[in-house]
Amino acid sequence: MAYSLLDSIHGIDDLKKLRINQLDQLAAEIRGFMIESVSNTGGHLASSLGAIELIIATHYVFDSPRDRIVFDVGHQSYAHKILTGRREQFALLRQEGGISGFPKREESEHDAFNTGHASTSISAALGMARARKLLNEEGSCVAFIGDGAMTGGLAMEAMDDIDDYELPLVLILNDNEMSIAPNVGAVNRRLTKLRTNKGYVRFKRCLVRTLDTSRGGKWLSRHMERTRDRVKRFIMPNLPFEDFGLIYLGPVDGHDIKKLIKMLRSAKELHKPVIVHARTIKGKGYSFSETNPERFHGIAPFSVMTGKVRTTGQMNCSEVFGKTMLEIAQRREDVVAITAAMPSGTGLSEFSERYPSRFFDVGIAEEHALTMAAGMATVGIRPVVAIYSSFLQRGYDELLHDICLQNLPVVVAVDRAGLVGEDGETHQGIFDPAFLITMPNLTVYSPATLEELSVMLNMAVDSGRPSAVRYNRGTLPSEKLSSPVAYGKWEIKLPIAEVTVVSTGTMLPIAHWVAKKHGVGLVHARFLSPLDREVLDEIQKKRSKVLVVEENVLALGGILAHELNPCRVRTLCLPNEPVTHACIDRQREWYGLTEKGIETALRELAVEE
Amino acid sequence: MAYSLLDSIHGIDDLKKLRINQLDQLAAEIRGFMIESVSNTGGHLASSLGAIELIIATHYVFDSPRDRIVFDVGHQSYAHKILTGRREQFALLRQEGGISGFPKREESEHDAFNTGHASTSISAALGMARARKLLNEEGSCVAFIGDGAMTGGLAMEAMDDIDDYELPLVLILNDNEMSIAPNVGAVNRRLTKLRTNKGYVRFKRCLVRTLDTSRGGKWLSRHMERTRDRVKRFIMPNLPFEDFGLIYLGPVDGHDIKKLIKMLRSAKELHKPVIVHARTIKGKGYSFSETNPERFHGIAPFSVMTGKVRTTGQMNCSEVFGKTMLEIAQRREDVVAITAAMPSGTGLSEFSERYPSRFFDVGIAEEHALTMAAGMATVGIRPVVAIYSSFLQRGYDELLHDICLQNLPVVVAVDRAGLVGEDGETHQGIFDPAFLITMPNLTVYSPATLEELSVMLNMAVDSGRPSAVRYNRGTLPSEKLSSPVAYGKWEIKLPIAEVTVVSTGTMLPIAHWVAKKHGVGLVHARFLSPLDREVLDEIQKKRSKVLVVEENVLALGGILAHELNPCRVRTLCLPNEPVTHACIDRQREWYGLTEKGIETALRELAVEE
Repeated sequence: MAYSLLDSIHGIDDLKKLRINQLDQLAAEIRGFMIESVSNTGGHLASSLGAIELIIATHYVFDSPRDRIVFDVGHQSYAHKILTGRREQFALLRQEGGISGFPKREESEHDAFNTGHASTSISAALGMARARKLLNEEGSCVAFIGDGAMTGGLAMEAMDDIDDYELPLVLILNDNEMSIAPNVGAVNRRLTKLRTNKGYVRFKRCLVRTLDTSRGGKWLSRHMERTRDRVKRFIMPNLPFEDFGLIYLGPVDGHDIKKLIKMLRSAKELHKPVIVHARTIKGKGYSFSETNPERFHGIAPFSVMTGKVRTTGQMNCSEVFGKTMLEIAQRREDVVAITAAMPSGTGLSEFSERYPSRFFDVGIAEEHALTMAAGMATVGIRPVVAIYSSFLQRGYDELLHDICLQNLPVVVAVDRAGLVGEDGETHQGIFDPAFLITMPNLTVYSPATLEELSVMLNMAVDSGRPSAVRYNRGTLPSEKLSSPVAYGKWEIKLPIAEVTVVSTGTMLPIAHWVAKKHGVGLVHARFLSPLDREVLDEIQKKRSKVLVVEENVLALGGILAHELNPCRVRTLCLPNEPVTHACIDRQREWYGLTEKGIETALRELAVEE
Repeated sequence: MAYSLLDSIHGIDDLKKLRINQLDQLAAEIRGFMIESVSNTGGHLASSLGAIELIIATHYVFDSPRDRIVFDVGHQSYAHKILTGRREQFALLRQEGGISGFPKREESEHDAFNTGHASTSISAALGMARARKLLNEEGSCVAFIGDGAMTGGLAMEAMDDIDDYELPLVLILNDNEMSIAPNVGAVNRRLTKLRTNKGYVRFKRCLVRTLDTSRGGKWLSRHMERTRDRVKRFIMPNLPFEDFGLIYLGPVDGHDIKKLIKMLRSAKELHKPVIVHARTIKGKGYSFSETNPERFHGIAPFSVMTGKVRTTGQMNCSEVFGKTMLEIAQRREDVVAITAAMPSGTGLSEFSERYPSRFFDVGIAEEHALTMAAGMATVGIRPVVAIYSSFLQRGYDELLHDICLQNLPVVVAVDRAGLVGEDGETHQGIFDPAFLITMPNLTVYSPATLEELSVMLNMAVDSGRPSAVRYNRGTLPSEKLSSPVAYGKWEIKLPIAEVTVVSTGTMLPIAHWVAKKHGVGLVHARFLSPLDREVLDEIQKKRSKVLVVEENVLALGGILAHELNPCRVRTLCLPNEPVTHACIDRQREWYGLTEKGIETALRELAVEE
């Protein structure tokens, strides 16, 4: 495919040299390049396809890096990366040594803020705008946010906090209707025009006049104003919208570059908090992704012709979780499933169809998902909340304060636990074990096979305790249980010896292989909390040297070193460093979570006195 | 004082036997009893005084425990505790063996949900209502929430998620204007009447009719509806208010029991999501607390006659923090202070007066406080965010994802770190070290004297790194620095010996005393992260046995056991159990964080091979 215009773009200065009527062609070329490139590397295609025109218009109007552009979540920013001189690096998108799939300040001065998790952009842009005011610096601060991310409490807290109506803060709402109900975005050009042309105030005045001159209208108009005001202020004290100082522009067709440019220029020139509402189509311009945007949200390499991805055939952990939930739901009528905007990603799609009244998608609102589950549990329901490990970080306090301290029977299915590969540092599920093991009353299950995952989920639901079942992105071995899972009991897979490896989850197969090869013991820590005191006693009695292998920052290793004292305990784990994007196997290699790494650690341990 | 009515109340059945016109006297007696009792024990007086009539009316109308009443935060629930048969236990309020200052399910069937942190009640009540629908159970679910707690993202997420307009969910907004702007609550009885009498729908219909029959009104009315709808749905997709299904009743005088009962009955009978807006006065009925509600928010024992508390004279850690911030602000123009609704509690009142443009109170919104700080830091401002340890749990993800992974120069002042005493399990600052030490790029400062706190705060701001400075509730010794604070360096206070104690913060003085007495080494871990490799090397070289003493769940002890292997490392710390209310010294005694406990641990360590 020829990219005659795109080939001339090496940075946003080149973009600004183009005429407005050339930008549609540029968008088409970017779209073609993006589909071609992501079909080879995999990536977040659908969101990025939908935001191409909006990003072109944004860069055409604003002057980055003088104007700061914050991309919420950031997976929609590929066109931004292409326009800011990173097109050639798309061959290594999300791969080791290549560019990240998310904005990264270290990659470009045009990446104003690193993102990955949802709903941060308004807080960040507001912070920037306030800071620049203090520093007497010019320039707009732009938050580029999707309708889904708007449902997060963090975004709402930030909206609520906009109290300075002279800040040049521009919120660009990229509304692809993937979260807001379809009736929201009925485009209304007349109203848009009214408002962008400052006719809105006139419109309101006209309304009041009409009321005032009609029968009964006078009384009504007076009271209507007061009611409306109070109604809004209640829900969100200082709601920063319209009457509250945030100027609304839109809706506008988010694929019509000319109109977008016009509206964004208005927004920029206002030098005030403004929200620009653009309607976009997720997956725009590629039939397969337009038809099925969810499948193309984050996708592996695929065929451009067929839209198809190579599949492995084996079920992944999320699918096994989803399948087990169906079985549990049939067995127990008191079980419900809760997700924070991830019905498909967490494997709950079929559950949601089969048990609609027992399925709750609360939007991007992990905190609410957990506290609501706690509420349900107090009256006899057994909720299972499925959340990715890195997003569970959002619900730390709700898990601790509302579920664990109250000792309520809520099960958290911690998906994407461990290294996640290409999404990089913001999505690594490597912090949860360290905080989960400190939480009172919480049982932490750590399956190493798909069958254990299923058995443990059943056990967690039946236990009536606060529970976390953590499992990785991708899959685990599928094999018959080598021994029944008993609550709080570890499995001695190879007898405790002079040296014993303790491992769990994804690391167990390789640990097993190495332990067997070197004739040392192997314990599968099926539970990270509580600890199996009997096994600990045996290790201590035998004065076994212990090597803990875990795919996360120090958690089990720290507590075993503490508990097993004076036994020698060494741990192979991840350091508290950001783990950047690459495939999972490479990420494991970096930190020695490999056959060779375990062998080296065992050798060192063996020679220690 | 005589409590003729109150003496007859041993549970809510007794309350329901009273006639409505006796309830004002009951409220007066409860008020008298509460002031008298809390003057002896200390407690959250102002909030509880303001909610007496509202709680009487709520229990008069609703049937707990069939109807579930969730108190947001919970510190306003004293009248609820008194009415539900716990009056006699107020002599031991918040003391060992006595009742908690917050709702506790284990105390009474009328405490529907344990609270302590803000903004959880709507999620919890919504969860209960949804669960009971599934279980075919009758009964209202009531969330009793203050206007302050409404600003929390969690509460907004929950509001956003109310999508079933047949749920008997009642939100009681206890609006004491401590957060909402004064213009919010202009009482409008006519409108209230319109709405409670189901006249509101008629009102709206009448409005449309008026418009439709007047000049130009037809066009306007049509477009107005669409605009208003879109405007609201933007901000909060599915905003559950008015058009979104939540019926609004109010505002009503929150101290007028008759009116409250009438309105709450309407709310109950609707069997739908309803919000009842009651205006109350924080500290109501006691001149000192009405005049100065913030001082009487959480108060130590005081004289009823004078309203005065015994003071110790010494500055506490928060005051030293506040004073140091004033010095830093003068020295560095790029420093700002951020609080989440705790200007006074964190010691920032004077800063807010002296530097209003550099002070940001974002409301009860810890998440936004941190991410906004990150945004500020990207453009050259050095924010200091003061948050209590247990509330920092709300911002776990924002600290990790937005500040630490981006390596931004934001300082978090972690106040109330360690045991907090009377507030009990929900407020203990004992989890943060375990999660802070896992966060990439984060420096964790742990001062043991007021002077170190001041020096370290300066160092943290100047360092340009993500930093947490943690200090306890109450105070620390005031003494000249025994050695200069150097970045990342620990202080060897007594030479590393065969046995060495490593401690920090509040535990240091007692550890010092014991170490001296027993002739062992003592290291002050001035930083929890990074570790001082030189000191670790020396310990390892000398094969010293190490006793770590920390006032939190296992953190430093785990990492030292991991790092110092094969040295013997024992740790005295808190188990991962809820630590209930009592004075701090008693809480320390429970877990051996005492002279005797340290001595026992040292003795055991000494005899180990």
